[in-house]
Amino acid sequence: MSKSFDIAVVGATGTVGETLVQLLEEREFPVGNLYLLAGNASAGQAVAFRGKNLRVRELAGFDFAQVQLAFFAAGEAASREHAPRAQAAGCSLIDLSGVLAGALPVVPEANAANLAGLSAPYLLSSPAPVATALAAVLAPLRSKLAMHKVTVLAALAVSQLGRDGVAELARQTTELLNMRPLEPQLLDRQIAFNLLAQTGAMEEGGHAVLERRAARELKAVLGVDGLKVAITCALAPVFFGDSLAVSVDTAAPLNIDEVARLLDRQAGIELVEAGDYPTAVGDAVGQDELYVGRLRAGLDDPAELNLWIASDNARKGSALNAVQIGELLIKHYL
Amino acid sequence: MSKSFDIAVVGATGTVGETLVQLLEEREFPVGNLYLLAGNASAGQAVAFRGKNLRVRELAGFDFAQVQLAFFAAGEAASREHAPRAQAAGCSLIDLSGVLAGALPVVPEANAANLAGLSAPYLLSSPAPVATALAAVLAPLRSKLAMHKVTVLAALAVSQLGRDGVAELARQTTELLNMRPLEPQLLDRQIAFNLLAQTGAMEEGGHAVLERRAARELKAVLGVDGLKVAITCALAPVFFGDSLAVSVDTAAPLNIDEVARLLDRQAGIELVEAGDYPTAVGDAVGQDELYVGRLRAGLDDPAELNLWIASDNARKGSALNAVQIGELLIKHYL
Repeated sequence: MSKSFDIAVVGATGTVGETLVQLLEEREFPVGNLYLLAGNASAGQAVAFRGKNLRVRELAGFDFAQVQLAFFAAGEAASREHAPRAQAAGCSLIDLSGVLAGALPVVPEANAANLAGLSAPYLLSSPAPVATALAAVLAPLRSKLAMHKVTVLAALAVSQLGRDGVAELARQTTELLNMRPLEPQLLDRQIAFNLLAQTGAMEEGGHAVLERRAARELKAVLGVDGLKVAITCALAPVFFGDSLAVSVDTAAPLNIDEVARLLDRQAGIELVEAGDYPTAVGDAVGQDELYVGRLRAGLDDPAELNLWIASDNARKGSALNAVQIGELLIKHYL
Repeated sequence: MSKSFDIAVVGATGTVGETLVQLLEEREFPVGNLYLLAGNASAGQAVAFRGKNLRVRELAGFDFAQVQLAFFAAGEAASREHAPRAQAAGCSLIDLSGVLAGALPVVPEANAANLAGLSAPYLLSSPAPVATALAAVLAPLRSKLAMHKVTVLAALAVSQLGRDGVAELARQTTELLNMRPLEPQLLDRQIAFNLLAQTGAMEEGGHAVLERRAARELKAVLGVDGLKVAITCALAPVFFGDSLAVSVDTAAPLNIDEVARLLDRQAGIELVEAGDYPTAVGDAVGQDELYVGRLRAGLDDPAELNLWIASDNARKGSALNAVQIGELLIKHYL
């Protein structure tokens, strides 16, 4: 007899929540009862799971004592409001919003061992997609490279803003191609055929909240002493899939062939051949793997590692990583 | 009586050459006779200059002894083939291709003084657009910041590939929006709603020729001892205007207000207010100025400077800088 778990997915009708439910099915997660939860506006919709249509329930009235594990994929406000009562009900949590104090950010390939010191109910988080992708790619290199600093420019897809972001890029592009005047709605300026140098809320001092979150999570997950992170998150006119240009300062000249071997043998990473490179749309979207290319030492510094990552921000970046955290939890801890 | 100069523009019908001719007129460059030159296919076309239509002549048969100064804006092959005979004819050259051995890369704000040691005929070059933009923005900071390393991700517009690049992005985008199968032609893959991790020819070792060129030119122009450059040039689904995410390692904690003051008072730089940021399409395109924003110290390193540059790759990036080099030459040297 194999054990099964009653599970809640908060935000089941969003882009990430929808992928999460698909992945629970595809990966044969041992789900007993599945409770799909959403805000008022989406409650009552139906979502397919294992050949049945499950009705989406209203989050506000849900009793989390009914489940052992809840995925929170409904954004910051929902996590702030409802995660504490889920936890109080004894339910373990995997949060995707990054706002829960005390939640341990986890990328299983990088820091599964960090769960060992904790006890149920677990309060875990799946990092921002950019931090998850970086952590998964850099983790297998930690044993060979003494990394000092990671500098990254993340060109994020508009799907990080959900379905509204996708609709905004499509609408703006169509208007411009039809020579109609552009009227930005969701965003405050033109994203079609343009790059925006920031995304989301900003802090005093000029950093984006997302940039600070991703840097904090990356450092926590990698656990490399003294690692510094410099990160710029830009929004690109791309529907799905993030592109990351990464430069890593290390302590000693690199053996690029060895770096390539370490990446190549790591599950979940697809290293493209030298001379080729991956793209978000052409390679990563819809795939579980992170695609890595443009592996090279520095022009001026043999101890500098440069690479390019293309990733599906809705899969390994968020829903897949969250499900993998769940798999880790049920295998060893719940 | 003011002196005037007989000038040749090689590549007068290309996107950069066309802007160059416009700028010679707008900036009242003291042009005597203007010779517009192009390859076989474009010879015979007419280009407007000071209210007249000038006929474009064939480059191959042109005698450069007729001019004192020639701008070479027709690409690498034309510079390789025809620049040596222009120089042999005693003509000073401002090359935009980056392939001429011995040419001094110049960004007037940064290294005008380097011309002092040379003699006519001058062999000068306008750096790659990304290097020109970086040099112009970092030059005014040299006296206050001890810069160790510049890390940059340049998201380049398809117009760096000329009119064919612009047409390719428009065609691919239209096909995708109309649900027609995508057939990449100029590029080997989808650029619409996607980012390409490299552009142009590649070297052994994984660097792009353009990346090495830009790094070399940036270092030569800035003249900062021991400066290291890490650069990734990606191609973005943007028609016009480059976006650069820049991170600079310096020797001491920054005073960001002082950095802002230095940039703000520099001619040719438009520093946007804290809390706002510039974009290629919304701010830079069609403007002579480089737009700078997202000025901030590092999250983990107070000696790290981060900023974002939006620039018109056809203006300060190439044609405008070339004309400014010409202005410097005629003012002091020719």
